[in-house]
Amino acid sequence: MSKIKAVVYGVGTMNCIITRMLVDKDVDIVGAISRSPSKVGRDLGELTEINRPLGVLVSDDAAEVFERTRPDIAVIAVNSFMADEVPQLRICAEHGVNAVTLSEEALYPWNTSPEITAELDRIAKSTDATLTGTGHQDTYWVNMVAMLMGTAHRIDRVIGRASWNVADYGLDVAVNVQIGRTTAQFEQWLRDAQRPGTFGRNVLDALVADTGLTVTSITTETLPITATSAMHFQSLDIDVAAGNVIGFTDVDEIQTEEGPVFTFEMSGRIYGNEEGDINEWSIEGEPNLVLSNGTVPTRLTTCTQLVNRIPDIIAAPAGFVTMEKLPQLRYRAFPLHSYLNGN
Amino acid sequence: MSKIKAVVYGVGTMNCIITRMLVDKDVDIVGAISRSPSKVGRDLGELTEINRPLGVLVSDDAAEVFERTRPDIAVIAVNSFMADEVPQLRICAEHGVNAVTLSEEALYPWNTSPEITAELDRIAKSTDATLTGTGHQDTYWVNMVAMLMGTAHRIDRVIGRASWNVADYGLDVAVNVQIGRTTAQFEQWLRDAQRPGTFGRNVLDALVADTGLTVTSITTETLPITATSAMHFQSLDIDVAAGNVIGFTDVDEIQTEEGPVFTFEMSGRIYGNEEGDINEWSIEGEPNLVLSNGTVPTRLTTCTQLVNRIPDIIAAPAGFVTMEKLPQLRYRAFPLHSYLNGN
Repeated sequence: MSKIKAVVYGVGTMNCIITRMLVDKDVDIVGAISRSPSKVGRDLGELTEINRPLGVLVSDDAAEVFERTRPDIAVIAVNSFMADEVPQLRICAEHGVNAVTLSEEALYPWNTSPEITAELDRIAKSTDATLTGTGHQDTYWVNMVAMLMGTAHRIDRVIGRASWNVADYGLDVAVNVQIGRTTAQFEQWLRDAQRPGTFGRNVLDALVADTGLTVTSITTETLPITATSAMHFQSLDIDVAAGNVIGFTDVDEIQTEEGPVFTFEMSGRIYGNEEGDINEWSIEGEPNLVLSNGTVPTRLTTCTQLVNRIPDIIAAPAGFVTMEKLPQLRYRAFPLHSYLNGN
Repeated sequence: MSKIKAVVYGVGTMNCIITRMLVDKDVDIVGAISRSPSKVGRDLGELTEINRPLGVLVSDDAAEVFERTRPDIAVIAVNSFMADEVPQLRICAEHGVNAVTLSEEALYPWNTSPEITAELDRIAKSTDATLTGTGHQDTYWVNMVAMLMGTAHRIDRVIGRASWNVADYGLDVAVNVQIGRTTAQFEQWLRDAQRPGTFGRNVLDALVADTGLTVTSITTETLPITATSAMHFQSLDIDVAAGNVIGFTDVDEIQTEEGPVFTFEMSGRIYGNEEGDINEWSIEGEPNLVLSNGTVPTRLTTCTQLVNRIPDIIAAPAGFVTMEKLPQLRYRAFPLHSYLNGN
């Protein structure tokens, strides 16, 4: 069986890790695409965790790369929202190239971006390509939760709690999310800000769609998280007075006609020492059930799931196939191409 | 779409709960089978959590029940080991009746009882029936763990820890597992006892088989758990001196040619107050990962999974189809028959 041929689309933090994982799993990287002038023309291996030449030069011409290399899959890590992601997904679909993206909205975009998702689905079906969104949320916020739900007889309520570390994204993001402001300033910002939709919405959309329940209302509420005492955050060199903002929680909630309520609380804040990303879910019903993954290395589990999903995406039917429709995710102990043809 | 027709095979603790769950999910219970003279001829509803007549009389003639009722599925909760379970599974297979059993070994019997499993597989294929083992271990010890493994790039070691409460099974079982004895007495018992195989072995067999890794050795070690101070266990009215046995742990381990090691530690002991069954897994590799379900109501999650698996088992190909081959388990919000035909 021949190796899987992949094109790396976007050469940022995530694809630097993913490129190394693909090489580890014996994937043949045949092309790399980036718009960044500082990367175009350079060897992908030198820009990523490989740290040695791969013989693959970064190009800014996606169409040329696809026509020349005819890859089995394109690995896209460029944008978070479907509106920004359309050009990349469309060019893959038009060239009949399967694509997997880390765009958070692409995890389940049917309700938040229905028209462009339907259009991409139509193009992909016409060229026999599969488009799928994945990432940390695939297993940890959707499929593992759906599996936990599968062990319940009756569900009244599903509640998820996860977090991200504002400090991981630098001072600009921290300022942007109002770190250090008073709660009054935060509320004012919240009223005025044109914040995009939450990704928690896409997570709950996927979970609820999988149950077949009928959605009656969807709400999002945002609550500030405040410092319990004066705090100094070394990683960003920021001081925050007691009572002022150290982050916020987006609470998405879906109510259903049949009764079950789904809530997802996503907190972005500055962590204290020893804190990490959490993933905690509870189900109220018969019986009550819980799931926790301690502290999760979200960035790595985003990359691992994308890589381990590749054989299933290549084998999947054509169209925009969201991850809850794929087979149960499995560990890939061997070269990735050994899992093609149902192995 | 017409209702699913089920026969309840065995009228003990588990099927009492399952019968009620089946009725809740609109399954048509068309027959009940038991060998117990105290149950034969009585109405199933009065013997189970239904507490009202179901119009289904318990019979001791399985063949007659199957020929008369032609059910879509038989729900078997009778034995733990394949050797004891063969008569029930064979009569289902011979009558072309799909069957799901709580027999712990039936979860993955290919390595521990290969001949009888192959024979049942052959009969079931000849009559177009599906035979499957499920229970708490399906999701919590195999499929959820396999999914967690699917979020790893490299696995060096998988370690699971679970527990059961000796007191749940009465004084006879407690005495049988040497509660209150000295560790010397325990070691002597361990040398002399003809203990059957552990069910942890079947769990690890399933996990390892799903990865395609090559098994090089399988070991089981049994270690006593001792009282840290003198203890009185109210539920069994037993006193145990400090240092004496309050239970034991079976440690199953599978080594593989490719490197990864799989360990499962199953502890049966008398619980203190507020303690319950646990389910904790950790993966060492890239990255390190953990999973915990707090305290799990093992008995209920055994019944829920059996019920929720039924549509997938009816739809599965013929033969002995172990649960890691079935689709990802899902919550069944609606009558069970609405999930047939890929709904």
